[in-house]
Amino acid sequence: MAEPFDAVVLTLFPEMFPGPLGASLAGKAQTDGLWRLRTANIRDFAPDKHRTVDDSPFGGGAGMVMRPDVLDAAISASRAKAGPLIYLTPRGRRLDQTRVRELAGGAAVTLICGRFEGVDQRVLDAHGAEEMSLGDFVLSGGEAAAIALLDAVVRLLPGVVGRSESLTEESFENGLLEYPHFTRPDPWNGVAVPEVLKSGHHAKVAAWRLAEAEAVTKARRPDLWDAYLRRRTKQN
Amino acid sequence: MAEPFDAVVLTLFPEMFPGPLGASLAGKAQTDGLWRLRTANIRDFAPDKHRTVDDSPFGGGAGMVMRPDVLDAAISASRAKAGPLIYLTPRGRRLDQTRVRELAGGAAVTLICGRFEGVDQRVLDAHGAEEMSLGDFVLSGGEAAAIALLDAVVRLLPGVVGRSESLTEESFENGLLEYPHFTRPDPWNGVAVPEVLKSGHHAKVAAWRLAEAEAVTKARRPDLWDAYLRRRTKQN
Repeated sequence: MAEPFDAVVLTLFPEMFPGPLGASLAGKAQTDGLWRLRTANIRDFAPDKHRTVDDSPFGGGAGMVMRPDVLDAAISASRAKAGPLIYLTPRGRRLDQTRVRELAGGAAVTLICGRFEGVDQRVLDAHGAEEMSLGDFVLSGGEAAAIALLDAVVRLLPGVVGRSESLTEESFENGLLEYPHFTRPDPWNGVAVPEVLKSGHHAKVAAWRLAEAEAVTKARRPDLWDAYLRRRTKQN
Repeated sequence: MAEPFDAVVLTLFPEMFPGPLGASLAGKAQTDGLWRLRTANIRDFAPDKHRTVDDSPFGGGAGMVMRPDVLDAAISASRAKAGPLIYLTPRGRRLDQTRVRELAGGAAVTLICGRFEGVDQRVLDAHGAEEMSLGDFVLSGGEAAAIALLDAVVRLLPGVVGRSESLTEESFENGLLEYPHFTRPDPWNGVAVPEVLKSGHHAKVAAWRLAEAEAVTKARRPDLWDAYLRRRTKQN
């Protein structure tokens, strides 16, 4: 049997884990030995008796900055043997499904969760940490981001999602948002399911779904829509 | 005293909550009565003895779709009295700090966490649910997204973050990613903190930080950089 995917999280709040990763799909996958989650408490690597992990920022300003020596010791002692080191921060490049697939194709990932104003930049540079962001919003720390990233990665690990559940026909796999879904009862609340979905005509269903996916992408995500149009032009 | 901010989460996995929201900043804020979290188990609203919540999609395809009647009953019984109803889905508009601030300025929010392939579109339309996405990646369900969204909102509620921690001088507040941070020891690992940050010259520190914020934004986020340039041109 293959080695389980190795996830290591460096945090000041190990009690936040596994959190939602302990239940449902990710929880079952961990029980099944498909991945494992290890946390390291950054505070355990503070050198002084007060277990200080932060200090004021050079140049002034509000908030506290995590010390490079403390985080360096935590990384050196706890980092997974393989795989990238990722620091979760709104300063990072945005996580996307392409990067999620790359991570799920690897053997391990180590995640650093920041708190306070930020982390001393020198320790990130010294370890070649990849700075990565969930999106353009600010969290109280990296923990909620680490949970979302691991949830996205774990569901793509081999054996986690059954063959009955498609992983290919979903949002972002073709650069478009997904078409809308309908199930029983029909009608419901006076609204019928679109006739074409009940026609049994596969080509017409596919065409309707593509048109719906294009429409919602154009309306909600002009950036994805532009990229889709450029790709389509190139192919023709 | 003001009413606490009211967060309601509709989910098939109430055991995933509070998860990380029970510790640190968000946990303390809940203990302090600044917000409260209530979950409702969608499965409790299934009408049959098997507690079925999903069915096959009309038009075919892999995966299962959440039934509109079940989710409708859960929403009607559990929705917060005020505030928006948000369905977390990669089909949605992307969450950003502007929307986070709007939500934190309100009295309540109700979040729907999807599972399976998706949710019947008719129930979302009937309730005017706002479809919202964390980013361009796919989670096993909306729960991790709900936790991230609430973490972002809770830290902006009045009284949650102390005055010593700035909320204004951070990523996205000026449309740029944040400048790098440095603290003691100096030097560390043979690398000195940039001299200007030790100069005590406030204007020079501010200019250096702005230049660094511009450089990282230009390198990592061409989209934010373009928007920043357009805004700057307009102001001149």
